[in-house]
Amino acid sequence: MAFSERVARLKSSLIREILAAAQRPEVMSFAGGLPAEPMLPKVEWAEMPASMGQYGMSEGEPALREAIAAEARALGVPCEASQVLIVSGSQQTLDLASKLFIDPGTEVLLEAPTYLAALQAFQLFGADCIGVPQEADGPQIDALRQRLEQHKPAFAYLIPTFQNPSATRYSEAKRDAVAALLDEFGVTLIEDEPYRELVFDEGSATPIVSRLRKASWIYTGTLSKTLLPGLRVGYLIATPDLFPYLLRLKQSADLHTNRIGQWQALQWLGSEQYKGHLAELRAFYRLRRDAMQQALLEHFADLADWQVPQGGLFFWLTLKQPLDTRTLLNPALAENVAFMPGEPFFIEPDRHPGHLRLNFSHVAPERLGEGLRRLAAVIRQAQAGMAA
Amino acid sequence: MAFSERVARLKSSLIREILAAAQRPEVMSFAGGLPAEPMLPKVEWAEMPASMGQYGMSEGEPALREAIAAEARALGVPCEASQVLIVSGSQQTLDLASKLFIDPGTEVLLEAPTYLAALQAFQLFGADCIGVPQEADGPQIDALRQRLEQHKPAFAYLIPTFQNPSATRYSEAKRDAVAALLDEFGVTLIEDEPYRELVFDEGSATPIVSRLRKASWIYTGTLSKTLLPGLRVGYLIATPDLFPYLLRLKQSADLHTNRIGQWQALQWLGSEQYKGHLAELRAFYRLRRDAMQQALLEHFADLADWQVPQGGLFFWLTLKQPLDTRTLLNPALAENVAFMPGEPFFIEPDRHPGHLRLNFSHVAPERLGEGLRRLAAVIRQAQAGMAA
Repeated sequence: MAFSERVARLKSSLIREILAAAQRPEVMSFAGGLPAEPMLPKVEWAEMPASMGQYGMSEGEPALREAIAAEARALGVPCEASQVLIVSGSQQTLDLASKLFIDPGTEVLLEAPTYLAALQAFQLFGADCIGVPQEADGPQIDALRQRLEQHKPAFAYLIPTFQNPSATRYSEAKRDAVAALLDEFGVTLIEDEPYRELVFDEGSATPIVSRLRKASWIYTGTLSKTLLPGLRVGYLIATPDLFPYLLRLKQSADLHTNRIGQWQALQWLGSEQYKGHLAELRAFYRLRRDAMQQALLEHFADLADWQVPQGGLFFWLTLKQPLDTRTLLNPALAENVAFMPGEPFFIEPDRHPGHLRLNFSHVAPERLGEGLRRLAAVIRQAQAGMAA
Repeated sequence: MAFSERVARLKSSLIREILAAAQRPEVMSFAGGLPAEPMLPKVEWAEMPASMGQYGMSEGEPALREAIAAEARALGVPCEASQVLIVSGSQQTLDLASKLFIDPGTEVLLEAPTYLAALQAFQLFGADCIGVPQEADGPQIDALRQRLEQHKPAFAYLIPTFQNPSATRYSEAKRDAVAALLDEFGVTLIEDEPYRELVFDEGSATPIVSRLRKASWIYTGTLSKTLLPGLRVGYLIATPDLFPYLLRLKQSADLHTNRIGQWQALQWLGSEQYKGHLAELRAFYRLRRDAMQQALLEHFADLADWQVPQGGLFFWLTLKQPLDTRTLLNPALAENVAFMPGEPFFIEPDRHPGHLRLNFSHVAPERLGEGLRRLAAVIRQAQAGMAA
């Protein structure tokens, strides 16, 4: 069978395999990024007009595009509804952006670590990925300047607010510095913000796209983390030089996003009910974050370092004594514990051993301590084996 | 702005522009392929479990995959549920298959004419498209053999049952002949069947994939023509050598298809209610097909030749005096009539003037005669201009 060249770059998805293993009910899973089941809001469908069953526009529902543009403007993103494209979950933004920008060998700039599924999508299209080391308050600015001086990336893909996996929230100063550098070098920014609304500790985080003066940009978000991921409704907002191409690529990919999910999203976006739901969600996840922090202090204080995440869904642990955390997966699953190894979040996995991504939204607090105790034991045993 | 090479191959979508123009309420549109609004079934959502709001599997809902496999087996397609992938409308099958097979310069085999959006999707990925002329009962078999002897296509993309745009239903003999040739040359078949259930005149049409003995295949269908296109739920069934790649490509494209649409599709598929709905749909469209035939005989008998479609949604007209039908678009729209020019359905549009695709499902019968009268007048005027 003669497949395309890109199929050779199609990785078997570690995430899918881990999540499949984690679906056994006895498994305590810190692996996924799923919303907690009890926090999925009850939704009503009775009022949906029959016309939502018909074909729709590739751009998305006009009223939803207006609502998303209004929310974005309130965040400081300068945009009109005409710049909003409704996508089938924000994963699709990565596919469309890859098609727009990436030929085999095209350079793209990413945080190190970065979102695994973005890295895989860009690599599938043949991108030559360049990493910028991440610090507690955002990317190393000197490294970013050096990369921009030495390379010609088609775009920079950044997740500045509660990054997956590192949970980093860029500081104001770094947001400004990044924007200034992208303007200086004329590099397009793709800013991915799935976790913006899942904030537990207040603080300013105006999007970087709102600080750009010249560079083109795509800003992308989703309803999956705050409403219902099963709707598969996300969006992108793009500068007018990019929008028409993204629209045609969207049409070629799947004609348009399902309208029933779009209609449901519109019932919530900007409503008092949604504000109330977001407040409940933050309170719920804050408690789980705090419970995880307590349990980590108990079981991991001597094993790893970490920052307390101010938002999002993950803790990012750095082992004091690094080892390839992929080797821990099977022993952990044998103890009915699932987690996400850190290596695949890096462009060169083998050069970045010793990180674990732990989701805190899914495991119920009463099982948390036991799950982390078992995971710590697996790590201790592996490290003892290394020392031996 | 440095875009990817493929963006240069991204055509402005004539379809989208025509459909946009056709949305003005005063326009009588024969352009689209939309189901008739009165035939969109009333659907219920009250029983949908809350769990459909959570993330799902990239493969799709297990029960829906089972139901689709059962329906396919009843048609003679040998398959298991494990070979079924739920996609975001069958347009997505074209995107996934393009990713799986097409590098710039990869040869693919298509009917001439073929489905416009498929042609555009394959060309976007850089396919070198090879056409096989279509006759009233399917492709010219001699031409097909000759193409297979002279080329090495990665796949053949065929729409054997009520093809869009030509409405052709392959004969039994041609189905067998095509299968034998694809087996002989070891060429993968992509068989696209959106219109299978919209049949007005009985007759056998077992899928070609069920006649293959060796060649790999992808069989793709959709709920969009028979239930609700707004759900964006389609499917593909693939041989086991192709399935794992298509699954990973699906995950990279949009994680999974929306679950609410999948749940709704499952309520209908295989039910008595669905069988009743399909019977009503066929009766409704048969009447519209017959009304269109009458109106065409009245207004187009001296202008064009055509076959009466036995299924699907379109008449395909061949002008007795060919001209570039794209030049008729603006004069027709000035008369508040929209139609689809035939040229873009061919790999080399300029070499195939003189066809029109007319949809018969959308325009109400009482406006049909007036719409076709105006369209015929536009054609007569253009032909008179050519003669002058």
